[in-house]
Amino acid sequence: MTALAAPKDDAFDSPFVKSLVSLIRAEDSFGAWERRSDARLLEDFIVTRAEKREMPMMADPDPDTVDRVEKFYKAVGLTIEKRCGLMASPMMKMSHEGFGRVVLLVGRLVAFSKSLRDVHRFGFEDFETLAAEGMKAVEQAVAVIERFPDVARA
Amino acid sequence: MTALAAPKDDAFDSPFVKSLVSLIRAEDSFGAWERRSDARLLEDFIVTRAEKREMPMMADPDPDTVDRVEKFYKAVGLTIEKRCGLMASPMMKMSHEGFGRVVLLVGRLVAFSKSLRDVHRFGFEDFETLAAEGMKAVEQAVAVIERFPDVARA
Repeated sequence: MTALAAPKDDAFDSPFVKSLVSLIRAEDSFGAWERRSDARLLEDFIVTRAEKREMPMMADPDPDTVDRVEKFYKAVGLTIEKRCGLMASPMMKMSHEGFGRVVLLVGRLVAFSKSLRDVHRFGFEDFETLAAEGMKAVEQAVAVIERFPDVARA
Repeated sequence: MTALAAPKDDAFDSPFVKSLVSLIRAEDSFGAWERRSDARLLEDFIVTRAEKREMPMMADPDPDTVDRVEKFYKAVGLTIEKRCGLMASPMMKMSHEGFGRVVLLVGRLVAFSKSLRDVHRFGFEDFETLAAEGMKAVEQAVAVIERFPDVARA
Protein backbone atom coordinates (compact mmCIF):
# COMPACT_ATOMS: atom_id res chain seq x y z
CA MET A 1 0.00 0.00 0.00
CA THR A 2 1.23 3.49 -0.73
CA ALA A 3 1.47 6.20 1.93
CA LEU A 4 -1.93 7.55 2.81
CA ALA A 5 -2.98 11.13 3.31
CA ALA A 6 -3.67 11.95 6.95
CA PRO A 7 -7.34 10.95 7.42
CA LYS A 8 -9.85 13.55 8.48
CA ASP A 9 -11.45 12.76 11.81
CA ASP A 10 -14.99 12.55 10.49
CA ALA A 11 -14.38 9.32 8.54
CA PHE A 12 -13.31 7.63 11.77
CA ASP A 13 -16.33 9.02 13.61
CA SER A 14 -18.68 7.26 11.19
CA PRO A 15 -20.70 4.52 12.94
CA PHE A 16 -19.84 2.19 10.05
CA VAL A 17 -16.08 2.72 10.37
CA LYS A 18 -16.33 2.27 14.15
CA SER A 19 -18.08 -1.08 13.57
CA LEU A 20 -15.45 -2.14 11.05
CA VAL A 21 -12.61 -1.25 13.42
CA SER A 22 -14.29 -3.11 16.28
CA LEU A 23 -14.65 -6.25 14.14
CA ILE A 24 -10.97 -6.15 13.25
CA ARG A 25 -9.88 -5.47 16.83
CA ALA A 26 -12.08 -8.36 18.03
CA GLU A 27 -9.85 -10.73 16.06
CA ASP A 28 -6.75 -9.48 17.80
CA SER A 29 -6.86 -11.99 20.68
CA PHE A 30 -3.27 -11.41 21.71
CA GLY A 31 -3.28 -7.62 21.63
CA ALA A 32 -0.66 -7.46 18.89
CA TRP A 33 -2.46 -4.54 17.21
CA GLU A 34 -3.31 -2.70 20.38
CA ARG A 35 -1.01 0.19 19.63
CA ARG A 36 -1.92 0.34 15.95
CA SER A 37 -4.05 3.29 14.89
CA ASP A 38 -7.46 2.70 13.33
CA ALA A 39 -6.07 4.11 10.08
CA ARG A 40 -3.34 1.51 10.09
CA LEU A 41 -5.86 -1.32 10.68
CA LEU A 42 -7.97 -0.18 7.76
CA GLU A 43 -5.21 0.64 5.32
CA ASP A 44 -5.82 -2.47 3.18
CA PHE A 45 -9.33 -1.21 2.48
CA ILE A 46 -7.83 1.76 0.67
CA VAL A 47 -6.98 1.04 -2.96
CA THR A 48 -6.45 4.04 -5.19
CA ARG A 49 -7.58 4.20 -8.79
CA ALA A 50 -3.97 3.95 -9.94
CA GLU A 51 -3.41 0.84 -7.83
CA LYS A 52 -6.61 -0.74 -9.20
CA ARG A 53 -5.39 -0.23 -12.75
CA GLU A 54 -2.30 -2.26 -12.00
CA MET A 55 -4.17 -5.21 -10.48
CA PRO A 56 -4.56 -8.32 -12.57
CA MET A 57 -8.13 -9.56 -12.87
CA MET A 58 -7.48 -13.16 -13.64
CA ALA A 59 -8.82 -16.20 -11.85
CA ASP A 60 -10.48 -15.94 -8.45
CA PRO A 61 -9.71 -13.04 -6.12
CA ASP A 62 -7.29 -13.85 -3.33
CA PRO A 63 -8.76 -14.96 0.02
CA ASP A 64 -7.59 -11.83 1.85
CA THR A 65 -9.57 -9.68 -0.56
CA VAL A 66 -12.68 -11.85 -0.20
CA ASP A 67 -12.20 -11.65 3.56
CA ARG A 68 -12.17 -7.83 3.39
CA VAL A 69 -15.40 -7.82 1.38
CA GLU A 70 -16.97 -10.03 4.06
CA LYS A 71 -15.72 -7.76 6.84
CA PHE A 72 -17.10 -4.70 5.06
CA TYR A 73 -20.61 -6.21 4.92
CA LYS A 74 -20.36 -7.63 8.44
CA ALA A 75 -19.64 -4.08 9.59
CA VAL A 76 -22.64 -2.83 7.61
CA GLY A 77 -24.73 -5.49 9.38
CA LEU A 78 -23.38 -4.55 12.79
CA THR A 79 -24.15 -0.87 12.18
CA ILE A 80 -27.71 -1.75 11.14
CA GLU A 81 -28.08 -3.76 14.33
CA LYS A 82 -26.86 -0.87 16.48
CA ARG A 83 -29.24 1.44 14.65
CA CYS A 84 -32.46 -0.57 14.83
CA GLY A 85 -31.83 -3.41 17.27
CA LEU A 86 -32.42 -6.16 14.71
CA MET A 87 -29.70 -8.62 13.80
CA ALA A 88 -28.51 -8.37 10.20
CA SER A 89 -26.67 -11.47 8.91
CA PRO A 90 -24.51 -11.15 5.82
CA MET A 91 -24.35 -13.98 3.30
CA MET A 92 -21.97 -13.94 0.39
CA LYS A 93 -21.69 -16.08 -2.70
CA MET A 94 -18.64 -15.87 -4.89
CA SER A 95 -19.33 -17.53 -8.19
CA HIS A 96 -16.24 -17.18 -10.35
CA GLU A 97 -13.60 -14.72 -11.44
CA GLY A 98 -14.57 -12.06 -8.93
CA PHE A 99 -18.32 -12.14 -9.55
CA GLY A 100 -20.78 -12.80 -6.78
CA ARG A 101 -23.61 -11.57 -4.64
CA VAL A 102 -23.85 -10.31 -1.10
CA VAL A 103 -27.05 -9.95 0.94
CA LEU A 104 -27.91 -8.82 4.44
CA LEU A 105 -30.79 -10.73 5.98
CA VAL A 106 -32.89 -9.26 8.77
CA GLY A 107 -35.54 -11.72 9.96
CA ARG A 108 -37.39 -12.80 6.82
CA LEU A 109 -36.27 -9.69 4.94
CA VAL A 110 -33.49 -9.27 2.38
CA ALA A 111 -32.62 -5.80 3.66
CA PHE A 112 -29.70 -5.35 1.28
CA SER A 113 -28.66 -7.12 -1.89
CA LYS A 114 -25.81 -6.32 -4.22
CA SER A 115 -24.15 -8.00 -7.16
CA LEU A 116 -20.39 -8.08 -6.80
CA ARG A 117 -18.06 -7.52 -9.72
CA ASP A 118 -14.30 -7.11 -9.91
CA VAL A 119 -13.85 -8.29 -6.34
CA HIS A 120 -10.12 -8.43 -7.15
CA ARG A 121 -10.12 -4.65 -6.99
CA PHE A 122 -12.25 -4.24 -3.88
CA GLY A 123 -11.20 -1.13 -2.04
CA PHE A 124 -11.89 2.57 -1.64
CA GLU A 125 -10.10 5.70 -2.82
CA ASP A 126 -9.73 7.07 0.71
CA PHE A 127 -11.17 6.75 4.23
CA GLU A 128 -13.93 9.26 3.49
CA THR A 129 -15.12 7.12 0.58
CA LEU A 130 -14.91 3.96 2.69
CA ALA A 131 -17.04 5.61 5.39
CA ALA A 132 -19.50 7.04 2.84
CA GLU A 133 -19.98 3.73 1.00
CA GLY A 134 -20.48 1.80 4.22
CA MET A 135 -23.03 4.30 5.48
CA LYS A 136 -24.80 4.30 2.11
CA ALA A 137 -25.36 0.54 2.41
CA VAL A 138 -26.58 1.01 6.00
CA GLU A 139 -29.07 3.70 4.93
CA GLN A 140 -30.36 1.58 2.03
CA ALA A 141 -30.93 -1.40 4.31
CA VAL A 142 -32.60 0.68 7.02
CA ALA A 143 -34.97 2.15 4.40
CA VAL A 144 -35.98 -1.38 3.32
CA ILE A 145 -36.47 -2.42 6.98
CA GLU A 146 -38.68 0.64 7.54
CA ARG A 147 -40.70 -0.30 4.46
CA PHE A 148 -41.29 -3.89 5.62
CA PRO A 149 -40.96 -3.81 9.42
CA ASP A 150 -43.16 -6.89 10.02
CA VAL A 151 -41.02 -9.00 7.67
CA ALA A 152 -37.82 -7.82 9.35
CA ARG A 153 -39.27 -8.95 12.67
CA ALA A 154 -40.69 -12.24 11.31
CA MET B 1 -23.41 -47.29 -2.08
CA THR B 2 -25.28 -50.41 -1.12
CA ALA B 3 -27.86 -51.98 -3.39
CA LEU B 4 -31.08 -50.00 -3.31
CA ALA B 5 -34.60 -51.29 -3.13
CA ALA B 6 -36.50 -50.79 -6.38
CA PRO B 7 -37.94 -47.29 -6.05
CA LYS B 8 -41.68 -46.78 -6.14
CA ASP B 9 -42.83 -44.67 -9.04
CA ASP B 10 -44.38 -41.95 -6.91
CA ALA B 11 -41.03 -40.65 -5.60
CA PHE B 12 -39.90 -40.05 -9.17
CA ASP B 13 -43.18 -38.35 -10.05
CA SER B 14 -42.60 -35.74 -7.36
CA PRO B 15 -42.09 -32.25 -8.85
CA PHE B 16 -39.07 -31.83 -6.57
CA VAL B 17 -37.37 -35.03 -7.73
CA LYS B 18 -38.07 -34.09 -11.36
CA SER B 19 -36.36 -30.72 -10.77
CA LEU B 20 -33.40 -32.42 -9.13
CA VAL B 21 -33.02 -34.89 -11.98
CA SER B 22 -33.27 -32.08 -14.55
CA LEU B 23 -30.51 -30.11 -12.78
CA ILE B 24 -28.22 -33.14 -12.82
CA ARG B 25 -29.00 -33.98 -16.45
CA ALA B 26 -28.34 -30.33 -17.40
CA GLU B 27 -24.71 -30.82 -16.35
CA ASP B 28 -24.32 -33.81 -18.64
CA SER B 29 -23.15 -31.81 -21.68
CA PHE B 30 -21.76 -34.82 -23.48
CA GLY B 31 -24.68 -37.17 -22.95
CA ALA B 32 -22.60 -39.63 -20.94
CA TRP B 33 -25.48 -40.26 -18.54
CA GLU B 34 -28.20 -40.36 -21.16
CA ARG B 35 -28.90 -44.03 -20.64
CA ARG B 36 -28.64 -43.86 -16.85
CA SER B 37 -31.89 -44.15 -14.96
CA ASP B 38 -33.06 -41.34 -12.69
CA ALA B 39 -32.54 -43.69 -9.74
CA ARG B 40 -28.93 -44.20 -10.73
CA LEU B 41 -28.36 -40.43 -11.04
CA LEU B 42 -29.76 -39.84 -7.57
CA GLU B 43 -28.18 -42.78 -5.80
CA ASP B 44 -25.59 -40.64 -3.98
CA PHE B 45 -28.46 -38.79 -2.28
CA ILE B 46 -29.43 -42.01 -0.55
CA VAL B 47 -27.47 -42.66 2.63
CA THR B 48 -28.95 -45.19 5.00
CA ARG B 49 -28.85 -44.88 8.76
CA ALA B 50 -26.27 -47.66 8.95
CA GLU B 51 -24.06 -45.90 6.41
CA LYS B 52 -24.34 -42.64 8.34
CA ARG B 53 -23.18 -44.32 11.51
CA GLU B 54 -19.98 -45.36 9.79
CA MET B 55 -19.16 -41.91 8.44
CA PRO B 56 -16.44 -39.93 10.17
CA MET B 57 -17.50 -36.42 11.18
CA MET B 58 -14.14 -34.79 11.34
CA ALA B 59 -12.99 -31.66 9.57
CA ASP B 60 -15.01 -30.10 6.76
CA PRO B 61 -17.38 -32.22 4.67
CA ASP B 62 -16.04 -33.22 1.30
CA PRO B 63 -16.84 -30.99 -1.69
CA ASP B 64 -19.05 -33.63 -3.36
CA THR B 65 -21.29 -33.72 -0.30
CA VAL B 66 -21.51 -29.92 -0.14
CA ASP B 67 -22.29 -29.96 -3.86
CA ARG B 68 -25.20 -32.36 -3.24
CA VAL B 69 -26.60 -30.11 -0.51
CA GLU B 70 -26.44 -27.20 -2.97
CA LYS B 71 -28.16 -29.24 -5.69
CA PHE B 72 -30.91 -30.28 -3.26
CA TYR B 73 -31.74 -26.64 -2.45
CA LYS B 74 -31.35 -25.52 -6.07
CA ALA B 75 -33.97 -28.14 -6.93
CA VAL B 76 -36.21 -26.83 -4.14
CA GLY B 77 -35.78 -23.34 -5.65
CA LEU B 78 -36.57 -24.57 -9.15
CA THR B 79 -39.72 -26.32 -7.92
CA ILE B 80 -40.87 -23.14 -6.15
CA GLU B 81 -40.28 -21.22 -9.37
CA LYS B 82 -42.35 -23.69 -11.40
CA ARG B 83 -45.07 -23.50 -8.78
CA CYS B 84 -45.45 -19.74 -8.41
CA GLY B 85 -43.47 -18.17 -11.25
CA LEU B 86 -41.06 -16.32 -8.95
CA MET B 87 -37.35 -17.01 -9.03
CA ALA B 88 -35.96 -18.52 -5.83
CA SER B 89 -32.18 -18.18 -5.40
CA PRO B 90 -30.41 -20.43 -2.93
CA MET B 91 -27.51 -19.11 -0.88
CA MET B 92 -25.45 -21.34 1.33
CA LYS B 93 -22.86 -20.60 3.96
CA MET B 94 -20.72 -23.37 5.34
CA SER B 95 -19.00 -22.20 8.47
CA HIS B 96 -16.95 -25.10 9.82
CA GLU B 97 -17.05 -28.80 10.52
CA GLY B 98 -20.31 -29.38 8.68
CA PHE B 99 -22.27 -26.50 10.19
CA GLY B 100 -23.86 -23.85 8.06
CA ARG B 101 -26.99 -22.15 6.83
CA VAL B 102 -28.98 -22.31 3.65
CA VAL B 103 -31.61 -19.81 2.53
CA LEU B 104 -33.85 -19.42 -0.49
CA LEU B 105 -34.42 -15.81 -1.50
CA VAL B 106 -37.48 -14.76 -3.50
CA GLY B 107 -37.40 -11.05 -4.29
CA ARG B 108 -36.88 -9.32 -0.94
CA LEU B 109 -38.18 -12.34 0.97
CA VAL B 110 -36.26 -15.05 2.80
CA ALA B 111 -38.73 -17.73 1.76
CA PHE B 112 -36.80 -20.56 3.40
CA SER B 113 -34.05 -20.66 5.98
CA LYS B 114 -32.45 -23.64 7.61
CA SER B 115 -29.44 -24.27 9.82
CA LEU B 116 -27.30 -27.09 8.55
CA ARG B 117 -25.65 -29.59 10.85
CA ASP B 118 -23.73 -32.79 10.15
CA VAL B 119 -23.44 -31.97 6.48
CA HIS B 120 -20.94 -34.86 6.30
CA ARG B 121 -23.92 -37.19 6.59
CA PHE B 122 -26.24 -35.42 4.18
CA GLY B 123 -28.50 -37.95 2.54
CA PHE B 124 -31.87 -39.65 2.77
CA GLU B 125 -32.94 -43.11 3.83
CA ASP B 126 -34.67 -43.83 0.49
CA PHE B 127 -36.12 -42.10 -2.57
CA GLU B 128 -39.48 -41.59 -0.88
CA THR B 129 -37.81 -39.69 1.97
CA LEU B 130 -35.75 -37.64 -0.50
CA ALA B 131 -38.95 -36.68 -2.36
CA ALA B 132 -40.86 -35.97 0.85
CA GLU B 133 -38.10 -33.78 2.36
CA GLY B 134 -37.71 -31.80 -0.86
CA MET B 135 -41.44 -31.21 -1.15
CA LYS B 136 -41.63 -30.25 2.54
CA ALA B 137 -39.10 -27.44 1.94
CA VAL B 138 -41.07 -26.36 -1.16
CA GLU B 139 -44.35 -26.23 0.81
CA GLN B 140 -42.74 -24.27 3.65
CA ALA B 141 -41.31 -21.70 1.23
CA VAL B 142 -44.58 -21.37 -0.70
CA ALA B 143 -46.45 -20.76 2.57
CA VAL B 144 -44.04 -17.92 3.44
CA ILE B 145 -44.41 -16.46 -0.08
CA GLU B 146 -48.22 -16.57 0.29
CA ARG B 147 -47.92 -14.79 3.63
CA PHE B 148 -45.75 -11.96 2.23
CA PRO B 149 -46.56 -11.81 -1.50
CA ASP B 150 -45.62 -8.13 -1.90
CA VAL B 151 -42.16 -8.74 -0.42
CA ALA B 152 -41.61 -11.76 -2.66
CA ARG B 153 -42.39 -9.54 -5.65
CA ALA B 154 -40.37 -6.53 -4.39
